[in-house]
Amino acid sequence: MSMQEMATRVKKAALELAAQPTGAKNAALSAIARALMDERDRILAANHEDLTRSEREGLAAPLLKRLRLDDAKYQEMVEGVESLVGLPDPVGRTALATELDDGLTLYRVTCPIGAIGIIFESRPDALVQISSLCLKSGNGVLLKGGSEAVETNRVLAGIIASATERAGMPAGWIQLLETRAEVGAMLKMDEQIDLIIPRGSNEFVRYIMENTKIPVLGHAEGVCHCYVDDDADQEMAVRVVVDAKTQYVAVCNAIETLLVHRDIAPSFLPAVKRALDAKGVTLFGCERTREIIPTEAASEDTWRNEYLDYKLSVKVVDSLEAAIDHINRYGSGHTDAIVTRSKTKAARFLSLVDSADVFWNCSTRFADGFRYGLGAEVGIATAKIHARGPVGLDGLVIYKYLLLGDGHVVADYAERKRTFKHRPLDRDFPL
Amino acid sequence: MSMQEMATRVKKAALELAAQPTGAKNAALSAIARALMDERDRILAANHEDLTRSEREGLAAPLLKRLRLDDAKYQEMVEGVESLVGLPDPVGRTALATELDDGLTLYRVTCPIGAIGIIFESRPDALVQISSLCLKSGNGVLLKGGSEAVETNRVLAGIIASATERAGMPAGWIQLLETRAEVGAMLKMDEQIDLIIPRGSNEFVRYIMENTKIPVLGHAEGVCHCYVDDDADQEMAVRVVVDAKTQYVAVCNAIETLLVHRDIAPSFLPAVKRALDAKGVTLFGCERTREIIPTEAASEDTWRNEYLDYKLSVKVVDSLEAAIDHINRYGSGHTDAIVTRSKTKAARFLSLVDSADVFWNCSTRFADGFRYGLGAEVGIATAKIHARGPVGLDGLVIYKYLLLGDGHVVADYAERKRTFKHRPLDRDFPL
Repeated sequence: MSMQEMATRVKKAALELAAQPTGAKNAALSAIARALMDERDRILAANHEDLTRSEREGLAAPLLKRLRLDDAKYQEMVEGVESLVGLPDPVGRTALATELDDGLTLYRVTCPIGAIGIIFESRPDALVQISSLCLKSGNGVLLKGGSEAVETNRVLAGIIASATERAGMPAGWIQLLETRAEVGAMLKMDEQIDLIIPRGSNEFVRYIMENTKIPVLGHAEGVCHCYVDDDADQEMAVRVVVDAKTQYVAVCNAIETLLVHRDIAPSFLPAVKRALDAKGVTLFGCERTREIIPTEAASEDTWRNEYLDYKLSVKVVDSLEAAIDHINRYGSGHTDAIVTRSKTKAARFLSLVDSADVFWNCSTRFADGFRYGLGAEVGIATAKIHARGPVGLDGLVIYKYLLLGDGHVVADYAERKRTFKHRPLDRDFPL
Repeated sequence: MSMQEMATRVKKAALELAAQPTGAKNAALSAIARALMDERDRILAANHEDLTRSEREGLAAPLLKRLRLDDAKYQEMVEGVESLVGLPDPVGRTALATELDDGLTLYRVTCPIGAIGIIFESRPDALVQISSLCLKSGNGVLLKGGSEAVETNRVLAGIIASATERAGMPAGWIQLLETRAEVGAMLKMDEQIDLIIPRGSNEFVRYIMENTKIPVLGHAEGVCHCYVDDDADQEMAVRVVVDAKTQYVAVCNAIETLLVHRDIAPSFLPAVKRALDAKGVTLFGCERTREIIPTEAASEDTWRNEYLDYKLSVKVVDSLEAAIDHINRYGSGHTDAIVTRSKTKAARFLSLVDSADVFWNCSTRFADGFRYGLGAEVGIATAKIHARGPVGLDGLVIYKYLLLGDGHVVADYAERKRTFKHRPLDRDFPL
């Protein structure tokens, strides 16, 4: 099938998927979970094939680990699908109801976005998670996974397609892409595809953002900060900084820069250095930092670094305002935290830092769909429209305005024969 | 000032504007309304200068009419600003509150988008409306109006800037662009500008959409439909079609295509033709239409036409499904209506037509921010993310996730020392 045909097919199926009742979508999700259990041997055989080939081709150990569907991951994958059944349907929710006039009532009701293209990394369990989220939210999906996982992805996508079609979902709602050429072609399908969600390296996401007219939801970088205020509980600040930097360094919500108020720096910097030294973190400090503790030297470029490693930039700042300015200037709008005892200063930080997630007295590592209780996430977004931060089911829907009348015409209002009432109603869309 | 400086200035001001309390923003809106009354003579003198020059340059009469600030329009302009004072602040609303664990509480709170670039048509009153909406929603704004209105716009923008700055708003939150070169430069400022809203001709909007990496909110075309079902009340259908086509032809929510079920066509088409003839509407019919009533001949291209004139495409369809398919294929996702007595068929149409506004038994001309009771609109959007249909204050905000803790770290949860509670709270953000 050509990319054009695939995209047209998904678009058509997506239009029908939009009208599927909650019960039918949930039954289809249960059918996926059952099929994943029934077809376990076939899936693991395909995964074994991918693993053998990738090992032979010299894939790095961490990537091999991501590729492997071990028992725990398999169980989580199935439970992830089952857990979606219990979540409320994001589609068909009435966000606004207004009586414009007698017998003329306006509703704003959530509906699926349409056809979504998602490009994701090597984990084959991501395919199951993403397609289940799309199904629950009524969206058709074009998926492109990592080439290491090609056999596993092919089997998984085939099982999901046939299980859901047997359960009554429109044929073609899920399509698997297998080549880079198909991704290139997909990025040009702005007539058929409504949204692209890329997950992967900074360079990859930036490439996608710069090479399509389709709206893109995602984030290229995660340059996250922790600011330790002069009113901070120092013991707490050390704990938060150590967690935010070292709990898992290879992720976008780990901090890359520590900002410290000048008045607390003389006592705090030595304390945090001891704790970070114990974890093997290399520090890159500004001049004022290096007057207090020995570190590598920071340059202007340092503040834009996303290390994703046991490395941390450290800067002494004069004030809360200077910290906020630094974050808004060098940050990536992802996740930033303040440690302070002052409610007033926390409120100012939370209001003025222009990031998707802004935290007071806790680690930036909490910025995650599961930890937030969103059920799951398709990714984290740092753009300023539609959805921001961890994007769960809510980010996969948009709305329609539905107006129910009884032959009402605008001429009557233009000619002042009738006037609008605009009475807010506490009522769900009735059809 | 260079475009770079202007954009940087707006961005900086926007960050501060985000933290302005509701009362301060409302006081600034009242200051605008007062200044517009106080400076009436100066504004009208500038408008007179624009009118004189434009008349001399041979500007068409309808455009001259749009340019002229007559008494009624002036009054409406001032009242529009005053009416925003009474609307609820779209910023700072808590959309979600979850207790993740003891003392660790997540809030999703609305916040401004940031710096918005708006390019609008010749009406100078649009400048006042747009900038007031941006102020109420806490956004900085770069404005470019029609060149015919250059003097009026300059005076209006100056008055708004100084009135609001005197009222305590951050300097530079509103910037006026005056040249096309500046617009071109603005489209490249994706670091500083978060959203572009273009209003104007199809060609112009499409040009903007294709020449910027900044997200664009708007619509290029309005190919709206009315489908008359075999279960329609024919008298009602005639009234709705006549209003939707002729109440005001030059607007995007007027219908361009009439779809008629084959079983009702023999009686309905002659009736609707009589009514449309009386309004001077030229019909372009498919072959089956022309077997019943005389019309111009439609071609395949006909179905994509946006006439914005006393012209209407007419097609006989075999079923509700055929009507829905036609609309999803040829429509622009703007506004489409069905006339039918059948609740079941209405529900199906409303669910399956993939447009921003979908109506039952009323005219498409109702698709408008004022008529919807949204207060006002910055434009109508047909994209599938962020905001759709008439975009009012709600469309000018996004949200942040704010997490308040007491030294919480992720390691405790990863090591299973603590588990998440994810208890939904009915509580507003407390800071």
